[in-house]
Amino acid sequence: MKASDFAAVAPAEIRAMIRKGEWTGPTPGMAEGYVQGNLVILPKDWAYDFLVFSQRNPKPCPILDITEPGDPEPRLVAPGTDLRTDLPRYRIWRGGNLVDEPTDITVHWRDDLVGFLLGCSFSFERALLEVSVPVRHIECGCNVPMYRTNIACHSAGRLSGPMVVSMRPIPAPLISKAVLATGRFPAVHGAPVHVGDPARIGITDITRPDFGDAVPIEDGEIPVFWACGVTPQAILMASRPPFAITHAPGHMFITSRKDSDYAVF
Amino acid sequence: MKASDFAAVAPAEIRAMIRKGEWTGPTPGMAEGYVQGNLVILPKDWAYDFLVFSQRNPKPCPILDITEPGDPEPRLVAPGTDLRTDLPRYRIWRGGNLVDEPTDITVHWRDDLVGFLLGCSFSFERALLEVSVPVRHIECGCNVPMYRTNIACHSAGRLSGPMVVSMRPIPAPLISKAVLATGRFPAVHGAPVHVGDPARIGITDITRPDFGDAVPIEDGEIPVFWACGVTPQAILMASRPPFAITHAPGHMFITSRKDSDYAVF
Repeated sequence: MKASDFAAVAPAEIRAMIRKGEWTGPTPGMAEGYVQGNLVILPKDWAYDFLVFSQRNPKPCPILDITEPGDPEPRLVAPGTDLRTDLPRYRIWRGGNLVDEPTDITVHWRDDLVGFLLGCSFSFERALLEVSVPVRHIECGCNVPMYRTNIACHSAGRLSGPMVVSMRPIPAPLISKAVLATGRFPAVHGAPVHVGDPARIGITDITRPDFGDAVPIEDGEIPVFWACGVTPQAILMASRPPFAITHAPGHMFITSRKDSDYAVF
Repeated sequence: MKASDFAAVAPAEIRAMIRKGEWTGPTPGMAEGYVQGNLVILPKDWAYDFLVFSQRNPKPCPILDITEPGDPEPRLVAPGTDLRTDLPRYRIWRGGNLVDEPTDITVHWRDDLVGFLLGCSFSFERALLEVSVPVRHIECGCNVPMYRTNIACHSAGRLSGPMVVSMRPIPAPLISKAVLATGRFPAVHGAPVHVGDPARIGITDITRPDFGDAVPIEDGEIPVFWACGVTPQAILMASRPPFAITHAPGHMFITSRKDSDYAVF
C-alpha cells in the first residue's frame, strides 16, 4: 500500500491505523482535502516565545492549534486524538540535536509540554492544482525546493532568524491565479512573499536549494516564493531549547478540518 | 478642538500631542485611515494564557502587536512609540477591579509587563462607509450596541467565557456588501459572526444591549453581528488577574499602520 491509496479514507481511520503502528510512512496524499499539520512540541517555558514568534510572523508560522500544557489532545482541529501516538514518525531533539526518530512519543511525554500544530503547504498546493496551476515538484515526484532568505523574521524573546521560503516555478500568465488561489488560505502560508528575481531575497543560486530538491524552471516561467513551515523549526532548533519534539519530515498530523474550513474568501 | 478636527493629522503628531498631555479625550475620528488599537497590558505570568486565548479566538481577539516583557514599544505597528504615555487615558485594574483612570502609566510600569494591541472596529466601519453601507450608531452619534451571546469562546488556561458581539442594522440588499467589505479585514474582526435572528445567539432583547447604546432597526433592515473587542477584556477581567492595564473606552492607541495594510484581498 502507498499513501495515495488512502486518499479517500477519513482522517479518523488513518489516525487509528497510525496509532496501532500499522502505518509509519509519510502522509502526503492521505485523506485528500483534509488539512495536515506540522508538529512542534516544547516545554511551557519555551512555548511563550514560540507563540509570540508565530504571532509576529504569521506567514511562515500559521498556528492551527495549541494544546494545554500536559494535554496531548488538539481540541480545535482534531478532538479525541492524541499527539503522542497519532503521527507516523517523530523527531526527538535535545539541546538542538536530533537524538531519536520514534513512531510513538508516549514515554517522552511530560506535564509541561505544549503541542503546536502549524499549517503546511499541502493544502495550498491542492488549491493551486484545483485552478490548474501546475506544481513542478509534484510533477517531478520530488520534494519542494526551499531556501534561506535575507528576509528577517520579527524576533521574539530567544527566537530570531531569517525566513525560509519554498519555490514553485509558475508560467507568467498563471501568476495572478496562483496568488489569488493561495491568498485565500492565510492559515496555510497564504499568498506568495516574493515573485521573480531570487537575488532580491538573498538567494544566490536557485539551482542549489538549502532544503529539499532542485526543480527545473522552464522558459516563460517565473520563480514564485511562499513562506515555508520549515522557518519556525529551523529558527527554533538554532536556538537550542533543552527539549523539543517535532514530526519527522513528511510524517504529518492529519487533522479533522478540511482545507475549505480555512478559506477566507 | 474636537477629535474629528484631527482627521487629517498624522499619527506621530497626534501621539506627540497626547504624550505632552495636550489631548486626553477619545480618539475616534483622529488620523483617519490609520488603525487604532485596543490595549491590554498584563504581567508575563498571565500573558501566555491571554495569547493562547487570542490565538484560539481570532475573530474577537485579533492581535496586532505584542511587546517584549518590560519593553513599552510596539515595534511592529508603531516603532519609536511608548505605550506608557501615548494613549490619552488608561484604566488600572487590580484583582479585576477598576482602581484608577490615569493619563500616563509610567509610574505603574514593571519589568514583567507585556502589552497587547488588538484590532478595533473603527477600521472595518470605515470599510463599510467606503462602500456606502450605512453605520447606524455613527448616524445616531452614539456608541455601538454590544451583547453577550451564547457563543462560547474556546477556553485557554484560566480564561473562558462567551463571545461579545457588536450589532449594526443593515438594509437587506446591502448585507452581501457588508460581509465582503469587512471580510477583507480579519485583523480587525473580519466578516460577521451572525446575520439575523438575535435569539439564535442568545440575545433575548435587542433593545437592551449589555454594553453601549441601543440603536433603532428600521423596516427592511437585518441585525448583523460582528465579533467584538470587548470580548477579551470582559473575559480577562472576569478571571481577575492581580494586575492589568487597559485603555479607557474610546481612548485608543493610534498606530502607524494604515487600514489598507491589513486587507487580505
